[in-house]
Amino acid sequence: MNVVAGVLAGEIAAGARLIRWLEDTDPRGRSALAELFGRTGRAQLIGVTGPPGAGKSTLVDALVGECRRRERKVAVIAVDPTSPFSGGAILGDRVRMQRHATDGGVFIRSMASRGEFGGLARATYDAALVMDAMGYDPVIVETVGVGQDEVEIATLAHTTVVVSVPGLGDEIQAIKAGVLETGQVFVINKADRPGVEELRRQLELMLHLRAQGAAPDDWAPPLLSTVATRGEGVSALLDAVFEHGRYLTAANRFAPRLGARSERVLLAEFGAGCVRRLLDTSRSDAALAELLDAVRGGRIDPYSAVARLLESTTIATAAS
Amino acid sequence: MNVVAGVLAGEIAAGARLIRWLEDTDPRGRSALAELFGRTGRAQLIGVTGPPGAGKSTLVDALVGECRRRERKVAVIAVDPTSPFSGGAILGDRVRMQRHATDGGVFIRSMASRGEFGGLARATYDAALVMDAMGYDPVIVETVGVGQDEVEIATLAHTTVVVSVPGLGDEIQAIKAGVLETGQVFVINKADRPGVEELRRQLELMLHLRAQGAAPDDWAPPLLSTVATRGEGVSALLDAVFEHGRYLTAANRFAPRLGARSERVLLAEFGAGCVRRLLDTSRSDAALAELLDAVRGGRIDPYSAVARLLESTTIATAAS
Repeated sequence: MNVVAGVLAGEIAAGARLIRWLEDTDPRGRSALAELFGRTGRAQLIGVTGPPGAGKSTLVDALVGECRRRERKVAVIAVDPTSPFSGGAILGDRVRMQRHATDGGVFIRSMASRGEFGGLARATYDAALVMDAMGYDPVIVETVGVGQDEVEIATLAHTTVVVSVPGLGDEIQAIKAGVLETGQVFVINKADRPGVEELRRQLELMLHLRAQGAAPDDWAPPLLSTVATRGEGVSALLDAVFEHGRYLTAANRFAPRLGARSERVLLAEFGAGCVRRLLDTSRSDAALAELLDAVRGGRIDPYSAVARLLESTTIATAAS
Repeated sequence: MNVVAGVLAGEIAAGARLIRWLEDTDPRGRSALAELFGRTGRAQLIGVTGPPGAGKSTLVDALVGECRRRERKVAVIAVDPTSPFSGGAILGDRVRMQRHATDGGVFIRSMASRGEFGGLARATYDAALVMDAMGYDPVIVETVGVGQDEVEIATLAHTTVVVSVPGLGDEIQAIKAGVLETGQVFVINKADRPGVEELRRQLELMLHLRAQGAAPDDWAPPLLSTVATRGEGVSALLDAVFEHGRYLTAANRFAPRLGARSERVLLAEFGAGCVRRLLDTSRSDAALAELLDAVRGGRIDPYSAVARLLESTTIATAAS
């Protein structure tokens, strides 16, 4: 079966295969993606982020159920910051998949950390594009709100949902601070627990401070409550998320969000490509090999070495 | 005062200034670092990593106290994955600094996440070099064991201490899986709590499995217990850490650990430098500007754009 045709027909097997090719940097993956690219850009990408223990998975599952009640095809990318060895991601997927196994309107993938800077962001970008081309909308990305990659993934979504929960220690709660300034929808999950009022006051204060620096036509982030295990508040949460999507469209900001993500991927991939070229070149260039060896041996600091390297590097004077 | 001379004399004000210059990428910072570089390489870099709630800060404080009892100058870099807006890092520093305020043998700095991939790893590398040149040994890096940067920082230390704690939920505990395979010293903190025996069995099993793939002269990671709040087990922990340092030295692996970190910084900085050059060039090169614009506008996928860019890019054919 042709993978591109399969993806465009919404076939899960084709989508899963293409995502795997892209993860493995199989050249067929990027070639297929280039063909599909013109058919992407419709899906609203929703980042759901919050500390461990906030009940994000349960909340995302409830959002999936609500999307299905509304007859929307919905995809989930679970970004797991643990190692590929942990097995956590795989187990989580299995449990989830069982619930939605017979429903072609739901597509779930887990991503574990990659070995290079930005690898997780790239893998998430790729998977979201494939799901978008398959007709899934929204695409929900669930991520722990900690770490450079994870924060970037959350903040570059169309809509970032920041999940808080009463009763976590300050140390854990503070983890999500990196996305507080950029979230578009705030939700207190497990809102039947003690401490909910204090948490609400803290979040209201934060939103109040943030509103003071806002322009009149800026989006005003709502603060909602859910008890995801009982489905309470989930419909209102999805309403708020879609309302933000309509706001972005009306303000001509929907497509540029994907454009910004594409530019980040471009720059990260270009940087990584230059590094690969450097290492390749050092195999045949004795002076270059000697410089790298001097850095490894502690005879020159890396910044002085980079300054020298950049002197003799010519970047992209023509684009075709 | 000359900053380089101040750093070499171990003056905290000079060290703090140089670290700030390096964080701000003030050109004076890298120039000073180049001068100092030959005087680095002595300090043992100790990564202390574990999930939120494991009591890492208390454990690190106890290690600092133990180092001082042994009359070692000790530095701490607290890697805080939260945003610069959170204030958490600053508050934490103040509390700690008060305890050690009058002790020139202790130097503590917090690092918050930077805006680019690998920024946190670079800032930590820089600060550790300055502390090393100031005569601090060991340099302890405390980091939450989650996120690409954080895992990299922990695993590239000379010695990685993986902190576990009984009674955390699986979701939180799993976070540290990324460093389990690479840790050199394992410690169960809060070892007076329920669940300690089960956790010990899990960790012993993991170490047992890991030992099966090890070579005969590989380091055998010990599993220790501490109650950091009461100082219990801390002296034995520091003994184990220093023993691993001696093992590295005897195996001629001590210097190469710093060399590997320098190489990572070199490659990341080279990649970032190439990206800056690309963006600069696009201001005067119309074809390049058009290509970037096509990516932002969704008219071409980023991978096809990168392939085109790399075709017209020449990397480092001469190193001086």
